[in-house]
Amino acid sequence: MFREKIKALDCTIRDGGLINNHQFDDRFVREVYKALSMAGIDYMEIGYKNSRKLFSDKEYGKWKFCDDDDIRKIIDGIESKMKLSVMVDIGRVDPEDVKPCSESPVDMIRVACYIKDVDKAIALVNAFSQKGYETAVNIMAISKVLDNELTEALQQLEKESRANVVYLVDSNGALYQEDIELLVKKAKSILKTKEVGVHTHNNQQLAFSNTIEGIIHDANYVDATVYGLGRGAGNCPLELLLGFLKNPKFDIRPVLDLISKEFIPLREKIEWGYIIPYAIVGMLNEHPRAAIAVRKTDKKDDYREFYESVKEVEA
Amino acid sequence: MFREKIKALDCTIRDGGLINNHQFDDRFVREVYKALSMAGIDYMEIGYKNSRKLFSDKEYGKWKFCDDDDIRKIIDGIESKMKLSVMVDIGRVDPEDVKPCSESPVDMIRVACYIKDVDKAIALVNAFSQKGYETAVNIMAISKVLDNELTEALQQLEKESRANVVYLVDSNGALYQEDIELLVKKAKSILKTKEVGVHTHNNQQLAFSNTIEGIIHDANYVDATVYGLGRGAGNCPLELLLGFLKNPKFDIRPVLDLISKEFIPLREKIEWGYIIPYAIVGMLNEHPRAAIAVRKTDKKDDYREFYESVKEVEA
Repeated sequence: MFREKIKALDCTIRDGGLINNHQFDDRFVREVYKALSMAGIDYMEIGYKNSRKLFSDKEYGKWKFCDDDDIRKIIDGIESKMKLSVMVDIGRVDPEDVKPCSESPVDMIRVACYIKDVDKAIALVNAFSQKGYETAVNIMAISKVLDNELTEALQQLEKESRANVVYLVDSNGALYQEDIELLVKKAKSILKTKEVGVHTHNNQQLAFSNTIEGIIHDANYVDATVYGLGRGAGNCPLELLLGFLKNPKFDIRPVLDLISKEFIPLREKIEWGYIIPYAIVGMLNEHPRAAIAVRKTDKKDDYREFYESVKEVEA
Repeated sequence: MFREKIKALDCTIRDGGLINNHQFDDRFVREVYKALSMAGIDYMEIGYKNSRKLFSDKEYGKWKFCDDDDIRKIIDGIESKMKLSVMVDIGRVDPEDVKPCSESPVDMIRVACYIKDVDKAIALVNAFSQKGYETAVNIMAISKVLDNELTEALQQLEKESRANVVYLVDSNGALYQEDIELLVKKAKSILKTKEVGVHTHNNQQLAFSNTIEGIIHDANYVDATVYGLGRGAGNCPLELLLGFLKNPKFDIRPVLDLISKEFIPLREKIEWGYIIPYAIVGMLNEHPRAAIAVRKTDKKDDYREFYESVKEVEA
């Protein structure tokens, strides 16, 4: 698949940070930044821009806050054309913390929201857009959104927001390719002036195929992470995405090196990927929190019992 | 997805046997047989029926030969409606070893062949069909087959063979869902009197989604293995397939138990699944043999070097 307009956004450090409270050290983040730059990735999302008034920096690492100066330490001296992105959550960002784009190393701000908070997301992206940033709204938990709710939200985003991109986020890892086809087609039909993006989770080993399905139906912004790193089952593996996208601007080799040197050792220390409790919440279309919790107990491999407990919540 | 006609075939012991020379012990195979029976799986493929004149039983376990009496020891005393299948390779089976179906615990024989051997496959399936077995032809390495070759082979299978099912086998784990769509549609258009099946490999985490894609386009026979066990990257995970198929005859819970009790410990002893060298041969559409070889060396995690070496073979 070669389509010039496709933009690959790597969110390894941002989504991976959900596993370790954003405590990746500078050396590791620089290695990721360097490899992604060499690989020709379009955007790297480095973390969340949360207010320090709400979260303690004793508990959380610097990528929970993404101070401009901390970002500068990462990129200093590394040749790169890659843009940088940060994510904000509704109600957790202090817009005062966000300087004008011209004074910041950040290029894009993505606002993550549930469907009910689309109004608030629009207010935020419009403020950030005013400050000169590229912006996106990431609609989370899309597998739980009713069709009419989604229609209204997309119409409102098209009409009232200055977001450049609207992402559909399969937070539960529950969607099959038929669902992605319908959702992306719907989004494309309403968002005439914006790009559509997909962010998938890998609970059922469908993150990559669902990303391909999005691309087939003209989603041009796609998220991935190195070796699929991410909370729970993780995300679409960047290395697979690069194998699929035939754009010669991408080079898979720096990413392969990065996996060999950094991600194989990391996987010994923190857990993500295809693990049955995450598959179960995916197939039952539930949030991964129960699976994350059970993996911290001595019942982490009692899959039948976990399945029954999630079914019970459903019933 | 609920479609009455879909038949799930589990080939855990057969395909998994390619990792350990078919040396699963009887206790393990009985546990698999019991769980699959309780789960309502339609067919279990237990191994290869190879000639003992060609292979030594010192080197290979009993599931390389699948003597009827060895199979009887597995199923004895376990309540089951599940049918049993064995696979044969062209040139490695002695048809004299195959008794009439009425005297054997085996219900189905699948003949694996490369496209050039379709003639020989037809002769074999017709002989086995004559003996009363359900039969299938599994066309391997489908990602390397030219369109006109495939057309001819399918026409010949439709006209001359008594096979009940023709499977398309993505041996290299190279196909994307667009490819599966085209191939299955093509097979369905030619094989008017037969069922179409898909057997996928998981090099690029696409085994499950490609199986779904096959189902969407009316492939009714689908292969899977417990926890995705299989040579190299492994196969479509049965537990995910059961989560997708909404047929109430299936019960995922015995499979979840089986994974907890048998497959989590097994994974500590033998390797399969998402491993970068298998992903690389998949994306470059090459046979996994080079990846299998490199995983046995001390360069098993030198991914860039492996990538360059496979690219070189290609060039």
